[in-house]
Amino acid sequence: MSSPLLPGESPRPLPQPRPGGRTARIRTQVLDAVRAELTEHGYDTLTVDAVAARAGVHRTTVYRRWRDIGGMIGDLFAAAGDLDWQPRDTGSLRGDLTALNQEIQDSLTEEPSIATALIAVSFRSVEAAQALRRLWEDRYTQSEIIIQRAINRGELPAHTDARALLIAATAPLYHHLVLLRTPPDPQLPDRAAATATLAARAGAFTDLRSTDAD
Amino acid sequence: MSSPLLPGESPRPLPQPRPGGRTARIRTQVLDAVRAELTEHGYDTLTVDAVAARAGVHRTTVYRRWRDIGGMIGDLFAAAGDLDWQPRDTGSLRGDLTALNQEIQDSLTEEPSIATALIAVSFRSVEAAQALRRLWEDRYTQSEIIIQRAINRGELPAHTDARALLIAATAPLYHHLVLLRTPPDPQLPDRAAATATLAARAGAFTDLRSTDAD
Repeated sequence: MSSPLLPGESPRPLPQPRPGGRTARIRTQVLDAVRAELTEHGYDTLTVDAVAARAGVHRTTVYRRWRDIGGMIGDLFAAAGDLDWQPRDTGSLRGDLTALNQEIQDSLTEEPSIATALIAVSFRSVEAAQALRRLWEDRYTQSEIIIQRAINRGELPAHTDARALLIAATAPLYHHLVLLRTPPDPQLPDRAAATATLAARAGAFTDLRSTDAD
Repeated sequence: MSSPLLPGESPRPLPQPRPGGRTARIRTQVLDAVRAELTEHGYDTLTVDAVAARAGVHRTTVYRRWRDIGGMIGDLFAAAGDLDWQPRDTGSLRGDLTALNQEIQDSLTEEPSIATALIAVSFRSVEAAQALRRLWEDRYTQSEIIIQRAINRGELPAHTDARALLIAATAPLYHHLVLLRTPPDPQLPDRAAATATLAARAGAFTDLRSTDAD
């Protein structure tokens, strides 16, 4: 399963490239190898040569296309961004946010977690930090349809701040699992979704705007 | 200003040690040097020798007391935990949570930020990750008085889940500033506090409990 607001898909192999794609096949092999090296050994020992050997691709091919570790990491984020991901439609705001949070929790707790590995890399490399930021931006934008559907259903007022609501719903997952490193709580995805939903219905993401105008 | 839910105090020198404390003075000098090296050069180039030189303390003294980088990082977290920190009492739940969030935002955005540096180190060292987790645990426990005061004032029901409410209030700050790396928004401390307060009043941290019992 692909990760919603997270950089990587799972470390399982990508789907087969489209026909005619020796280039695409090599990319798949190399990025799979980068993921495997990252999750098994971490960023410190990541080298282009190790990736090439693991991928079974000639090292000059790898150097020509990706140049260095930064290039490979950047392409890993780009591949994650290419995924045709969209949030699930469960029929309710709380249900949609719970499904989103469940995907986030799954991606952060699977073993090994490429998502967690790439977040760690973002503290080592400015390019990775920027790529992660762009990817999260894309995924939050893709998730805004959850709020639009809730508005269309009459669950939320029309001028709800979609981004602020999505951040409120998802931030506790990242805070617990990435920073506080608390053991995963199976109820957390729904709890955080329910809290954000209650806050939204109480006007947290609309009334605050008018408060600002005071 | 000391950081509330964060590992480090600011990189300014600690208060003078109590009289009679050559040992305490040396600790202050060494930990100040660790902070300065971390924020200026990062973890990669951190060495006991560089810290000893910067602190002006003989290297054998430093090795004897702290053994290695892990020992120095662990003591840095311990020193942060020793701080006599307590959350501000502003007279309202939203005010108290805003003050807490403001302290978090300040500590994460000051230049240089020892808090951000130590969070980065927690992705490199298991000991640092454990020390950070313990420190956050302490700071959240110290912050629970905010919820107790709100209960005493009648702002919240007696069986409010203090920890869940504190996480909901503070998580967006960490998510924006540490993970998403969005530029600091001066209104975010109050917005996140107001959202959590609205959710709490709507029963987010009490009704969920009874929902579980269904």
